[in-house]
Amino acid sequence: MGEWDESVPQTSFAFRAQAAAGDDVSEPKKRARKPAGKRSKAAHSEPSENAPRRSAAELARQARDISVSEFFAKNRHLLGFDNPSKALLTTVKEGVDNSLDACEEARILPDVRVEIGQVSETRFRIAIQDNGPGILRKQVPKIFGSLLYGSKFHRLKQSRGQQGIGISAAGMYGLLTTGKPIAVTTRTGKSHDAHYFELVIDTKTNEPKVKCDEVVPWEVEHGTRVEIELEGAYRGGQHSVDAYIRQISLANPHAEITYVPPKAEEHGASHTFPRVSEQLPPDTAEIQPHPHGVELGVLMQMFRDTTARNLRSCLAADFSRVSSRTALEICQKAGVPESRRPSEITREQAEKIHAAIQTTKIMAPPMDCIAPIGEELIERALRAEVQADFYAAVSRRATVYRGNPFLIEVGLAYGGSLPAEEPITLYRYANRVPLQYQQGACAITKAVSGTDWKSYQLQQPRGALPIGPMLLMVHIGSVWVPFTSESKEAIAHYPEIIKEMRLGLQECGRKVAMFIRRRRRDADEAKKRAYIEKYIPQVSIGLQQILELSDPQRDAVTASLTDVLERSRKL
Amino acid sequence: MGEWDESVPQTSFAFRAQAAAGDDVSEPKKRARKPAGKRSKAAHSEPSENAPRRSAAELARQARDISVSEFFAKNRHLLGFDNPSKALLTTVKEGVDNSLDACEEARILPDVRVEIGQVSETRFRIAIQDNGPGILRKQVPKIFGSLLYGSKFHRLKQSRGQQGIGISAAGMYGLLTTGKPIAVTTRTGKSHDAHYFELVIDTKTNEPKVKCDEVVPWEVEHGTRVEIELEGAYRGGQHSVDAYIRQISLANPHAEITYVPPKAEEHGASHTFPRVSEQLPPDTAEIQPHPHGVELGVLMQMFRDTTARNLRSCLAADFSRVSSRTALEICQKAGVPESRRPSEITREQAEKIHAAIQTTKIMAPPMDCIAPIGEELIERALRAEVQADFYAAVSRRATVYRGNPFLIEVGLAYGGSLPAEEPITLYRYANRVPLQYQQGACAITKAVSGTDWKSYQLQQPRGALPIGPMLLMVHIGSVWVPFTSESKEAIAHYPEIIKEMRLGLQECGRKVAMFIRRRRRDADEAKKRAYIEKYIPQVSIGLQQILELSDPQRDAVTASLTDVLERSRKL
Repeated sequence: MGEWDESVPQTSFAFRAQAAAGDDVSEPKKRARKPAGKRSKAAHSEPSENAPRRSAAELARQARDISVSEFFAKNRHLLGFDNPSKALLTTVKEGVDNSLDACEEARILPDVRVEIGQVSETRFRIAIQDNGPGILRKQVPKIFGSLLYGSKFHRLKQSRGQQGIGISAAGMYGLLTTGKPIAVTTRTGKSHDAHYFELVIDTKTNEPKVKCDEVVPWEVEHGTRVEIELEGAYRGGQHSVDAYIRQISLANPHAEITYVPPKAEEHGASHTFPRVSEQLPPDTAEIQPHPHGVELGVLMQMFRDTTARNLRSCLAADFSRVSSRTALEICQKAGVPESRRPSEITREQAEKIHAAIQTTKIMAPPMDCIAPIGEELIERALRAEVQADFYAAVSRRATVYRGNPFLIEVGLAYGGSLPAEEPITLYRYANRVPLQYQQGACAITKAVSGTDWKSYQLQQPRGALPIGPMLLMVHIGSVWVPFTSESKEAIAHYPEIIKEMRLGLQECGRKVAMFIRRRRRDADEAKKRAYIEKYIPQVSIGLQQILELSDPQRDAVTASLTDVLERSRKL
Repeated sequence: MGEWDESVPQTSFAFRAQAAAGDDVSEPKKRARKPAGKRSKAAHSEPSENAPRRSAAELARQARDISVSEFFAKNRHLLGFDNPSKALLTTVKEGVDNSLDACEEARILPDVRVEIGQVSETRFRIAIQDNGPGILRKQVPKIFGSLLYGSKFHRLKQSRGQQGIGISAAGMYGLLTTGKPIAVTTRTGKSHDAHYFELVIDTKTNEPKVKCDEVVPWEVEHGTRVEIELEGAYRGGQHSVDAYIRQISLANPHAEITYVPPKAEEHGASHTFPRVSEQLPPDTAEIQPHPHGVELGVLMQMFRDTTARNLRSCLAADFSRVSSRTALEICQKAGVPESRRPSEITREQAEKIHAAIQTTKIMAPPMDCIAPIGEELIERALRAEVQADFYAAVSRRATVYRGNPFLIEVGLAYGGSLPAEEPITLYRYANRVPLQYQQGACAITKAVSGTDWKSYQLQQPRGALPIGPMLLMVHIGSVWVPFTSESKEAIAHYPEIIKEMRLGLQECGRKVAMFIRRRRRDADEAKKRAYIEKYIPQVSIGLQQILELSDPQRDAVTASLTDVLERSRKL
């Protein structure tokens, strides 16, 4: 520290000494917090031109662990909390996602209630309540007061949530903006007490701090109610909570959703979107990783972690679609003994096994791990949403990216009340959740813009959405949806995914093109026909003069010609 | 567990029992890893129609902590590792960012060397070496083998890195795809040994595992060399490493960058981009949070953490631009005694203080925490980049979003060799780092598309980039750049930031519009002039006939008229 300019004020030294105390990298908890004192103001007055050269030791002093909550609190736009109206929507979304997931996993037809109460001009209290299975008392704090905690991350199974961030992040945003804790009421069954919690996240440690934990009377037999107070804004339009609620109920016809908007007196009373189907989506299976999607590093990790005794049984047991025979084939190709203990496999051997897997024919992953919405239901949803002249829907067969099964569905509505001179409307869905923001960054948008709509009878500016009276709905279902950010607003650009989307879009495109062509042909014919019809009487009069027909004969000719025209049209 | 269907195979029960053993939420380390056995295949064979209703306890069994490395390994596209060519670029970028930051913080003119060696068709070994201050031996493992560790997160200071993720993530991607550790050689000065490390990240715990740690001879006096082997692809074009190296050297004229592309024999030998300026960018100051950008929750946290004895001194000491007098004013407005111990301030009082801060006039944050590139240097960079007819550059004054100072710079080149009939080229920079991906998702793109370029004499399709022979360069410098994802490829849409960008673009737009108008006027005039010039001789001949002039007189008239034309033009 001797090389520091003597003019640096004392307080600045004081800080450095203080920070140095927290310098032990092995004890992150002891880290020196931002110190008091005029540190930066002092640093500030240093002449920046002749600032002294700094040593590694000095630079090292500020290095420390960053808790995941600190990280996301500072980067809260990554989680969808960029601005007040988006924060409100994101909070509702995370709550509803969790409710629907919980109900479906417990095989309960979901009843979800969303209430938005306006506390002051910029402050709202959001409540989301479900009839799900409830949450065990001991798990409540971690689920709602810790980021990266959950049941959905370490498995391959289709669900809305997957990261273990969402609802805790909403609670953290509420805490950041209002200082108020998240409130949770939950009950796991008739014979169990209902528990009421108030808790906050400690952003420095990413651990929950419980402020209140008591047994309360609750008329609900089983379910969970989450309440979060936050700074927000309630707006209309494409990105609004209202639009979200409508879109989510479209893609989840088995759920009954009751929505109480703020100032229900003003904005209209509560809306209930009744259940259209009494059938839960099929219970999707959890799958193991498919060997073709497993990277070398992951493979090595799996060898270290497996409970299997030897390589062959590890391959057969821990992977999807690997029979004992296939496992043997892989061992032989790789030249690694099948009896090798997995934990003793070297990097070089793992690399050979990895290469052998790539060249071995292995059945595609099982596809009942994905529950499509289905063509019929998509079409019904579209009919409910817009009055159009033509509807089409396509559910593609499931396929794989990076070993993860996924499935693309496309719905299309054309004509009718849709605006003809504007870019089409695009609804994007992932695992039945509508994506409302970041359309420009989404693989769905890229697939739609990259499809040649001119060959399907639509106008299209180069590299943009087509123009025309059309609504497109694209849904990706997957055991692991790759989002471009934690806020889950757009799909990442994996080529396999974009390709499948294109194929689905083309299939729908061909259908709509047929419709447009037929309609155009009909219109042409109608024009011709009108033209001919107009002249049939003249033709009859001409014939009358040439053949000296009587008036009744002339009328008979007119009738006969009209009849011929009618019949030729029907052919 | 009694309510489970008896038909569920034994192995499935075995798994559940096993998972239940890791059920203790307070001990995340003990969590049950993905078990061996036919679990999912078994689950799979359950008839999904009559799947039994599941209880909260059963659903709870899979909940567990997710380590931040596990999270990002699975979501590696969030960090810029979506595909092999992007992975290669991201790795180079993270390495160079760190090198430049380290050199500048140590006030050393950076010499950075980037080597890309091709190991096999799909495998590359990347080395980034600098002449920076080196890294303390004890810090190497955490810096390179743990996500969310670093010196740049917990401070408000302009730097390229800010998250403590980048280089460790690159190492993790290398490990995932090749199984190879990250190799680091570092030396902190002549009188210190050089240390060589090989280490990997343990994704389950987010902790480094050191494989090799030894003293080595190294001819470099001080600096760091990082080597990562990874699956990658080397491509040309807009998103290539080559384009990145050129763009980064443009924005960092004080750095000398040597680039050795793969197969230097084939792709041309190594390139050196020499230092254009011997002057380091000014050393930027670290600042304290500005009270106007501090949220209620953060304020409460600061009250809990401060070392100040009372409210007034806390406000004055921990915040930027709060004098003791301003602090007193805030206390009085809030109706909270100035002598109140910060740790004893209630939520209600904090809310009053927060409200009082909003209504108190406080000087804008100090702006020397941001080092702009500068108008002169931007123009120079553009001249080096493209041959154009007109150049302009604007450095806006720094301003604030969410309390964070930031500054916008815009550079523009027009005409010359730039293509006239295509959308303009847009270069985006954040803290001197080029952003090459996700142009569509970036606030810069939004600001450019949202500017009315027609009023600046350019064509522009609605809501899109303008068309014309133009290159735009937009730079945001900030103590905290809000990126839309951890891969730092696009700026989040904060309204304050977009507004500043628009103002900068408009300023440049007016300049280019003047140029375009002048050029058009000149062209018009030249046309008129050519027209008149053509007829001057005819006029003279006409005059000769009317006035009966001699030939020399006629020629004199021609000369005189030409002279008048010349002079009128000069006026």
